[in-house]
Amino acid sequence: MEQQVGLGAVSLLGVLEQAYFSLQVIYSRRKFSVSPPATDGPPEFERIFRAQANCSEYFPIFITLLWTSGVFFSPGLSSVCGLLYLYGRLQYFWGYSESPQGRLAPLYFSSRVLWVLIGFSAVGVLMAFCRVYLGLDLQEVVLHLL
Amino acid sequence: MEQQVGLGAVSLLGVLEQAYFSLQVIYSRRKFSVSPPATDGPPEFERIFRAQANCSEYFPIFITLLWTSGVFFSPGLSSVCGLLYLYGRLQYFWGYSESPQGRLAPLYFSSRVLWVLIGFSAVGVLMAFCRVYLGLDLQEVVLHLL
Amino acid sequence: MEQQVGLGAVSLLGVLEQAYFSLQVIYSRRKFSVSPPATDGPPEFERIFRAQANCSEYFPIFITLLWTSGVFFSPGLSSVCGLLYLYGRLQYFWGYSESPQGRLAPLYFSSRVLWVLIGFSAVGVLMAFCRVYLGLDLQEVVLHLL
Repeated sequence: MEQQVGLGAVSLLGVLEQAYFSLQVIYSRRKFSVSPPATDGPPEFERIFRAQANCSEYFPIFITLLWTSGVFFSPGLSSVCGLLYLYGRLQYFWGYSESPQGRLAPLYFSSRVLWVLIGFSAVGVLMAFCRVYLGLDLQEVVLHLL
Repeated sequence: MEQQVGLGAVSLLGVLEQAYFSLQVIYSRRKFSVSPPATDGPPEFERIFRAQANCSEYFPIFITLLWTSGVFFSPGLSSVCGLLYLYGRLQYFWGYSESPQGRLAPLYFSSRVLWVLIGFSAVGVLMAFCRVYLGLDLQEVVLHLL
Repeated sequence: MEQQVGLGAVSLLGVLEQAYFSLQVIYSRRKFSVSPPATDGPPEFERIFRAQANCSEYFPIFITLLWTSGVFFSPGLSSVCGLLYLYGRLQYFWGYSESPQGRLAPLYFSSRVLWVLIGFSAVGVLMAFCRVYLGLDLQEVVLHLL
């Protein structure tokens, strides 16, 4: 558990960010008088609605990668990537609220961070696999080759 | 693993609840003849569809909080909150199926439960942080001050 | 961690599959000129959009079951079921892209796999419950009865 404090903190921060996005949708529903269950409305409302929906959709993928990468590769590096991702998502949400164009740069940024987490997870899982099933410490092998 | 039995049981119950909601959408699609990929239909269908979509959206947030709070704060208290949340979501689904108004009271209830889990998680992560990085046992400090 | 390598690998594979589905939606948006935040378009686009939305919706449920079943029942069997589920979801996505009918067979297959994971989780949680709270080893009891 010692090493997972950072992962826990980033997970909690991610939940708070989602809560913030949900509140923005609620305010936006009131502002543009779009009552549930309707999800169609003026473009401003639809952008905020889609921004939140997109962030929600990626949230479980983010959490899965954060912990896979954190447990199998490095909790510290994963937590840092997690913070960068959450920062990117905040910029994405604000950008998308302004215009469809405004979502692009932070979207590319946050998906690049996810690919880094995918890379970390892949390396971590591969290393654990070699250690458990082949009795091979890849880290040592690589250090030896250098 | 001893302490996490409750968390596992609540997670499983949460999955079963989601399965129940999904089945209701399928029955409702048949009843109102709304064939996939369409998601628009009579208000009754749209309410059930949105109720399920909303519960699905919150499911990963709920699971993340349940386990963060359970691992870092207290598995017992978190499991109890988890049961309350799932109960609230069931009431929400049934209420929303009846009318948009019917979703409000249980929605407020279940989001209040989530805020309690957020509070537990925050206290738990903070305590773990102080213990790991500052060598400080907050629980002892608080008991000492009382 | 030794036993969880398979679960980590399947989780990562699941994330990569979701990334693939998301990319297909992006390509489809370009092909049929459906710019965000719009989600309505020609049936071909809507099928791909709904296929991805449905897979995303089930992703957190899948991950929750994979790990609950893996931690409490058997990491090996859960990983195998996980691979089957991901295979079923790929067939579902391709089938739904072709026609609404094409989604049905793989949808039934992948939900059957989820029910197997639900069964494993239930047995695992029950066994852990009996061991922790009743001091009863169910596995031994069953072996004794045979």
